[in-house]
Amino acid sequence: MELRTDLALEARELAGENIHGVDYTVQQKDAIEIEKMVIKTERAGQLLKKPKGTYITIELPPLTNDFQDTDKRLVAIGEEIRSLLPYNGLVLVAGLGNIDITPDALGPKTMSGVLATRHISGEIAKSTGLDKLRPVAVLKTGVTGQTGIETGEHLLSVVKRIRPSAIIVVDALASRRLERLGCTLQISNTGISPGAGVGNHRTKITEETMGVPVIALGVPTVVDAVTLASDLLSVEQESDSVKIRERVSPKGRMMVVTPKEIDLLVERAAKLISLSINFALQKDFDIADLVALL
Amino acid sequence: MELRTDLALEARELAGENIHGVDYTVQQKDAIEIEKMVIKTERAGQLLKKPKGTYITIELPPLTNDFQDTDKRLVAIGEEIRSLLPYNGLVLVAGLGNIDITPDALGPKTMSGVLATRHISGEIAKSTGLDKLRPVAVLKTGVTGQTGIETGEHLLSVVKRIRPSAIIVVDALASRRLERLGCTLQISNTGISPGAGVGNHRTKITEETMGVPVIALGVPTVVDAVTLASDLLSVEQESDSVKIRERVSPKGRMMVVTPKEIDLLVERAAKLISLSINFALQKDFDIADLVALL
Amino acid sequence: MELRTDLALEARELAGENIHGVDYTVQQKDAIEIEKMVIKTERAGQLLKKPKGTYITIELPPLTNDFQDTDKRLVAIGEEIRSLLPYNGLVLVAGLGNIDITPDALGPKTMSGVLATRHISGEIAKSTGLDKLRPVAVLKTGVTGQTGIETGEHLLSVVKRIRPSAIIVVDALASRRLERLGCTLQISNTGISPGAGVGNHRTKITEETMGVPVIALGVPTVVDAVTLASDLLSVEQESDSVKIRERVSPKGRMMVVTPKEIDLLVERAAKLISLSINFALQKDFDIADLVALL
Amino acid sequence: MELRTDLALEARELAGENIHGVDYTVQQKDAIEIEKMVIKTERAGQLLKKPKGTYITIELPPLTNDFQDTDKRLVAIGEEIRSLLPYNGLVLVAGLGNIDITPDALGPKTMSGVLATRHISGEIAKSTGLDKLRPVAVLKTGVTGQTGIETGEHLLSVVKRIRPSAIIVVDALASRRLERLGCTLQISNTGISPGAGVGNHRTKITEETMGVPVIALGVPTVVDAVTLASDLLSVEQESDSVKIRERVSPKGRMMVVTPKEIDLLVERAAKLISLSINFALQKDFDIADLVALL
Repeated sequence: MELRTDLALEARELAGENIHGVDYTVQQKDAIEIEKMVIKTERAGQLLKKPKGTYITIELPPLTNDFQDTDKRLVAIGEEIRSLLPYNGLVLVAGLGNIDITPDALGPKTMSGVLATRHISGEIAKSTGLDKLRPVAVLKTGVTGQTGIETGEHLLSVVKRIRPSAIIVVDALASRRLERLGCTLQISNTGISPGAGVGNHRTKITEETMGVPVIALGVPTVVDAVTLASDLLSVEQESDSVKIRERVSPKGRMMVVTPKEIDLLVERAAKLISLSINFALQKDFDIADLVALL
Repeated sequence: MELRTDLALEARELAGENIHGVDYTVQQKDAIEIEKMVIKTERAGQLLKKPKGTYITIELPPLTNDFQDTDKRLVAIGEEIRSLLPYNGLVLVAGLGNIDITPDALGPKTMSGVLATRHISGEIAKSTGLDKLRPVAVLKTGVTGQTGIETGEHLLSVVKRIRPSAIIVVDALASRRLERLGCTLQISNTGISPGAGVGNHRTKITEETMGVPVIALGVPTVVDAVTLASDLLSVEQESDSVKIRERVSPKGRMMVVTPKEIDLLVERAAKLISLSINFALQKDFDIADLVALL
Repeated sequence: MELRTDLALEARELAGENIHGVDYTVQQKDAIEIEKMVIKTERAGQLLKKPKGTYITIELPPLTNDFQDTDKRLVAIGEEIRSLLPYNGLVLVAGLGNIDITPDALGPKTMSGVLATRHISGEIAKSTGLDKLRPVAVLKTGVTGQTGIETGEHLLSVVKRIRPSAIIVVDALASRRLERLGCTLQISNTGISPGAGVGNHRTKITEETMGVPVIALGVPTVVDAVTLASDLLSVEQESDSVKIRERVSPKGRMMVVTPKEIDLLVERAAKLISLSINFALQKDFDIADLVALL
Repeated sequence: MELRTDLALEARELAGENIHGVDYTVQQKDAIEIEKMVIKTERAGQLLKKPKGTYITIELPPLTNDFQDTDKRLVAIGEEIRSLLPYNGLVLVAGLGNIDITPDALGPKTMSGVLATRHISGEIAKSTGLDKLRPVAVLKTGVTGQTGIETGEHLLSVVKRIRPSAIIVVDALASRRLERLGCTLQISNTGISPGAGVGNHRTKITEETMGVPVIALGVPTVVDAVTLASDLLSVEQESDSVKIRERVSPKGRMMVVTPKEIDLLVERAAKLISLSINFALQKDFDIADLVALL
């Protein structure tokens, strides 16, 4: 049976820590641990079932509204995001997922906090200094079942029109380990692959398909119940995977494991990510000012 | 390890089907299966870990908005509820649980659809026939962590004031089996016991504490992850329960298993239950009229 | 002072009923009154401050959930929408406005009920008959202040990608008369003009800019307070318009007049419009089936 | 015609500034203007159509999330609230109004931010210092149309059970002037009178009916359209009030004037008031800590 995870960190745990072609480093910055993993070869990517590229993982603070204490983390996250972006130019920030399904709502909920600036221009902007803001466009793509449009198709049509220098996509992830739910942010420059995310996207959203760098941000909000079951049972013994799948995914309904307070978790992760993106994109502005602006 | 369930049906499955002092019957009404279980002795109650009383279980329709097709089910549910209520007199309907936590929101969400009528009186009511409505009061109790008031305490204070002839409480339940999530309605005349429900109430809400009959309605919205794990592993072998608990309830956080589309499931169960309660309470009114009134 | 209205009906009331180049007819269909106005010349359009084209106005039912009783109205509305659409081909349905601002939320809220079908294809669709559904894509455009993208720009980029045969846009309107709030649906084939809608769009969304027919649907949700004041005072006497504007739009804040229960009004209008659009687009399907599907 | 206002300040403007038996002072505290009005005699109360007692009015900050800048205001408001409360003992904080009707939702929305502490006790509380928190209970009363229970009746039943030393009620108000919408907080020790608030309560909630001091907090969210019209027209000339009422309240529907962004206004006022109440009640705790706790 398959252990499903969108986290490169967990893919490495599963595949083994000594794979050739994978660089792994841990850095401390202001007491925050930043794990960086670079998959450098196609072969390593195949072993890990993740595309070649850079994956950064940062632990999130416990559930709290206290943004004074999370300033350092916000700065660390913002700087890592910025390190993957071109130095200037329009950035399109897109929230993937279904706002009506709590564990899939991270993307659209994050978008509500990202500062759109592409439309700010003219004399008033100049006189207030707002013309120094980096141009940003913000999109909630919706989900194919509700729009009839593939997420990648929607993004591409907007990209062709507004010609961003890079795209940031935010999406809810599935992890293998329950302790990571809501506690881990993954930043990568590899975009989104089919089958990833809580909503299981069907199209690739990558530099290859979009024509510009695609930075993906995600926080795990669920563990697939099939993964949990496989994980629990494989520890003990080999088992009949079909029988287990029937028990934890009755009639093919996808069952997920989440903290009971999943609503709160998504709300707060969305707030932290949106503030980090704002910090990454508007580097000449003070965080407090940005918080006030929103 | 403990297999947690709020469903009497599952308690019977666990304890065995041939317990002395338990009556179990299955009835067909308009193609709807109604399972009725009566726990008649204290000893049977102890074996099942459920209070003495009547437990009725009805399968819910699949997720759909098509209330034309669910009319029969609505009637069946309404008639079972009515069978447990006094013939007339004020009824207090109370929704338990936390509206901000999706799997715990069934109670308050149901209340939004229950027709309050206790305040309707006077000449206008007479001329429109509305004075023939059974008097109903509707309460969202909130949860102790947000109110500082125990749910039972809150209910009791209102009961002493408005003197209902019976109370209906609606609450989200935990089941043992994933296939029952959102698919089973339990109706009982035993009220709510400590530790029951998704939110784990701490006080008894029963005829004994309230002084009037307490009808409890609930639909399972979660399986406790500890229960799922215990269930999966006990099938195979005895295991170290502490180790398992740490894995599926890291740092003591309660993890739950739900369908991915839990928001939809709660929304629709709430709608069906509220319509059934309205039908149970306002027997002289047409269902279509009631739907129109709301 | 200006009397602001997005309703062609009210523009005609203001400009006079005997303008050359305007056809006006009233039709009864199943006890539902359908007013049809055709502006045939540029000059008539200038006098009415509305673009040339067809404007259909239908009275909405009082606030009620009783969709059995509104079936006829739904059919009437659906048929009028269909009469303005090409016979077949993909239709893009777009909800304009800000979902976080209640009186501006009609567009996005309506979209939640419109059936997207463009992605339904393949063997399963064939075997269930769903391949006979007309292809429909559904978009919530968001508002420029939150996206950095002009509504028209967003629509056009998607249009270029998916190549619809027509566009339906839904938007909240401003009327002159309070009694029309929530009670009138306007259907036109003239698209959306700058300055229209509650959110005051800045770009044209018309057949000219989009390259395909644009059907606009709207319900008035507000009367601009400046319009109400002008209206009240002009009846009596000429007045200092600057002074009045300062009183009813202090510090330039836009003040609107709405029914107290504006949330309910928007919710129900959105439901009715989405059902009507579904009926217009899926003419081979039964209304009851469509309701069940959603 | 009647000019409806729940603000004592505006009642004074209407009745004249030199009424015998009314004390009026303005104080500056940290650049914040605090207007205090004391109605000392029954006769003055009759002239002003407000009960005898103290009314404090504080200007609110413009719409912003920047709570760093609003700390001073929060402290000023908190200290005024505290000045009207008994020195210690349980406080019941109650939010009045309908959470589903945006302009009436201030009360229940504020409650979501008020820290309930009455249930915190025992060894854990002692070891963390939380036992020093003042006991607070928090209630959303709902509205009679949805509960069948009068707001005052609901409050009284809880008061009899939990025996608070004082009650704080929060409710949305109607003002006469548009420029005060969302910009003015009124604090009084006179409770709530019939006909006050956006929802027009029918029962008295005062020290007389509740048996303990009742502090009322409110922010105007609407101007009644009849009041606006009366105000506009009375300036110019006497007019036929019945005709005007028909125009601005067609078929008796209550029409209200609000800023377009009423949702935002209510959200932010609720946040500020809840923080101020927390500060007033938990004087031994740091504001930043309290923000973090919530």
